[in-house]
Amino acid sequence: MTIAVTAVPPISSFAQSLSDPAGFGDQSLITPRPGAIRLLGGIPAPEALPLPDFARVSAELWTDRAAATAALQYSSSTGLSGLREWIARREGVEPARIVVTNGGLHGLSLAVLTVVERGSAVAVDDPIFPLFLRVLELADGSVRPIPVDGDGLDVAALADRLAGGERISALYTVPDFHNPSQGTLTARRRGALADLAEQYGFWLLIDNPYRDLRFAGQDQGLATFHGSDRTIVVNTFTKTLGPGWRVGWLVLPEPLVTPIVRLRNRLDGHTSTVTQALLEHLLLADPAWFDTVLAPARRLYRERSLALADALAAEAPGAFRITRPEGGLFLWPRLTDDRVDAAALAARAADAGVLYQQGAFFASGPDTWESSRHLRLAYGDRTPDELREAARRLASAF
Amino acid sequence: MTIAVTAVPPISSFAQSLSDPAGFGDQSLITPRPGAIRLLGGIPAPEALPLPDFARVSAELWTDRAAATAALQYSSSTGLSGLREWIARREGVEPARIVVTNGGLHGLSLAVLTVVERGSAVAVDDPIFPLFLRVLELADGSVRPIPVDGDGLDVAALADRLAGGERISALYTVPDFHNPSQGTLTARRRGALADLAEQYGFWLLIDNPYRDLRFAGQDQGLATFHGSDRTIVVNTFTKTLGPGWRVGWLVLPEPLVTPIVRLRNRLDGHTSTVTQALLEHLLLADPAWFDTVLAPARRLYRERSLALADALAAEAPGAFRITRPEGGLFLWPRLTDDRVDAAALAARAADAGVLYQQGAFFASGPDTWESSRHLRLAYGDRTPDELREAARRLASAF
Repeated sequence: MTIAVTAVPPISSFAQSLSDPAGFGDQSLITPRPGAIRLLGGIPAPEALPLPDFARVSAELWTDRAAATAALQYSSSTGLSGLREWIARREGVEPARIVVTNGGLHGLSLAVLTVVERGSAVAVDDPIFPLFLRVLELADGSVRPIPVDGDGLDVAALADRLAGGERISALYTVPDFHNPSQGTLTARRRGALADLAEQYGFWLLIDNPYRDLRFAGQDQGLATFHGSDRTIVVNTFTKTLGPGWRVGWLVLPEPLVTPIVRLRNRLDGHTSTVTQALLEHLLLADPAWFDTVLAPARRLYRERSLALADALAAEAPGAFRITRPEGGLFLWPRLTDDRVDAAALAARAADAGVLYQQGAFFASGPDTWESSRHLRLAYGDRTPDELREAARRLASAF
Repeated sequence: MTIAVTAVPPISSFAQSLSDPAGFGDQSLITPRPGAIRLLGGIPAPEALPLPDFARVSAELWTDRAAATAALQYSSSTGLSGLREWIARREGVEPARIVVTNGGLHGLSLAVLTVVERGSAVAVDDPIFPLFLRVLELADGSVRPIPVDGDGLDVAALADRLAGGERISALYTVPDFHNPSQGTLTARRRGALADLAEQYGFWLLIDNPYRDLRFAGQDQGLATFHGSDRTIVVNTFTKTLGPGWRVGWLVLPEPLVTPIVRLRNRLDGHTSTVTQALLEHLLLADPAWFDTVLAPARRLYRERSLALADALAAEAPGAFRITRPEGGLFLWPRLTDDRVDAAALAARAADAGVLYQQGAFFASGPDTWESSRHLRLAYGDRTPDELREAARRLASAF
């Protein structure tokens, strides 16, 4: 007797091509020492999120039958019109160029699927926000690492490679308070980057989730990017109003709006009308509201960044080269002694009760040495006391 | 003097392959007569959505600091654990098989990208929910239409084609209160379909947004599908708690959970923690709550379906073959006289002040004749009085 056995049908080649997580993110799989201080993620401080305002606007929405009914219905793929107009005013562009997304990562994935030709070369930050490399797998993008320094992406290095004949379909960078390396792309470099995109015909993917969290130094502007018809700017309310909303936006050159909407119509229709309506009501009811949320948040992040930077300098004198952040949620200290084993230091730090991301996880190319000399310390959701204790533990591990 | 001009870089071939809307959906582009009665979309009745409960749970969430803080943070790609457990209990499967999505269309797109090999053949309902054909463009799927009758998909017709040598990577059907054709797949056909999937090694994509809206007849069960390791069941809270939430779920064979999560990690991370937390609190606080929402909704849709079906029979006697719906949101009357020009009828109806979707929009194959003999009338969000008036106007157009 024979039994007919049919194999379970395979998943698609596309699904098979997506990698398992490695490095960045794995930290969450280890069991931390009880009481360990986690400096792992770019997470906004719970104290910086305006819970009473969310309570108030929810009460208003659900007791206004017309508004509540609209919030529970389907809505436009591009987003609620009032929310788009608010975003457009803030960005200084026409509302027609705004598409509301389910957060920053979603904006990146829509952009990659729309403008990165499958298998083409994409220049990226080195070090990089590692999740972008996973997003890039959606288009089987081939990574071309470009160094990042204290002034952001090294645009001259990119220009050299382009002049040398290298061709790319797109470039990815975080211009404000770079993740992980905390620097800001200078206005001069922004202009040079937009010029290169025009000269060589590639897309700029400008990922800017930390932009609203500047607490020192000089804003370098976005007008150059918004004036370029080769630039997609990706932003989100994640770092300002909370990741849980999953509401972000794209600023698109107008010819890209229709292709992005077509893709959206096939992927998920539109962002939750409920979450959009709540944020729209808050943002439109009081034009000053968002800035009144940001002001104390910036003070809080400034205080935390200084608490960590100064405690680390005091507790482990000479061990790190430290630059005080001007914004964002990350400190990126560099080990001064090249003989230090960075992986062993991270393991000893975990034993001592402080968890952070190793710099090597953020390398986008095969040469991980320079990245490995750094630690990424996320201070956003830790109190100054916790950060000082974290610095003591890190110093003891050192 | 020459001026160097670089063309705007092209969008990806993938993005170019996505079509513009045509047919279904275009109705929303025409300017309706003022006072026109819209029977266009499968939209739940605003009166059936429990606004006071949403107000209450929002007040509870935002004033509970711990719960609110959690709702504003990142969460698991698979969804909040309590919500998954509630869904799993209701579906009768293990919670590990549930992935929360941003609604039904999102579940379909995740499923298509994961199991449909690019360019492969996919058997689908004919007539079909047309947006699935757009989703299928994500994998460049090649459509194989299978007739649907009053008992759902004609599984014997599918079996004949498979026996004749045709091979497919997946099959798509709406088993309960088919969209557009209102029938329900019989238990016997469900079993035969699962057997074919096993015998020939293809995936079943079971799209079931209307399942909870049965108001007559006998439920045909989902156990056959949940017991099959080749079946993905797609469902959503869209038709029961409102489209605006954008919260749905997949019931997956366990080997598909990891591939779906990998894809999710690259597309958008996870569904809004805020919307999930609100629904989770409602569903878990009172195990009877969801059914207390559904009971009046079912009565309301029963009343509306009968108002429309009976008024149409009374106002245009003999013009249509009408089957009273057993659930869902659609009536699919068939023109009895094959000489009637269906497109002209729709135009006259629009002039008379009633808008509906022409049956021809729902054909999935080149032969649109049988579909074109039908009208899809969506009654969910219209009152009985509006539906009776719509029937009068339709009769006058006829």
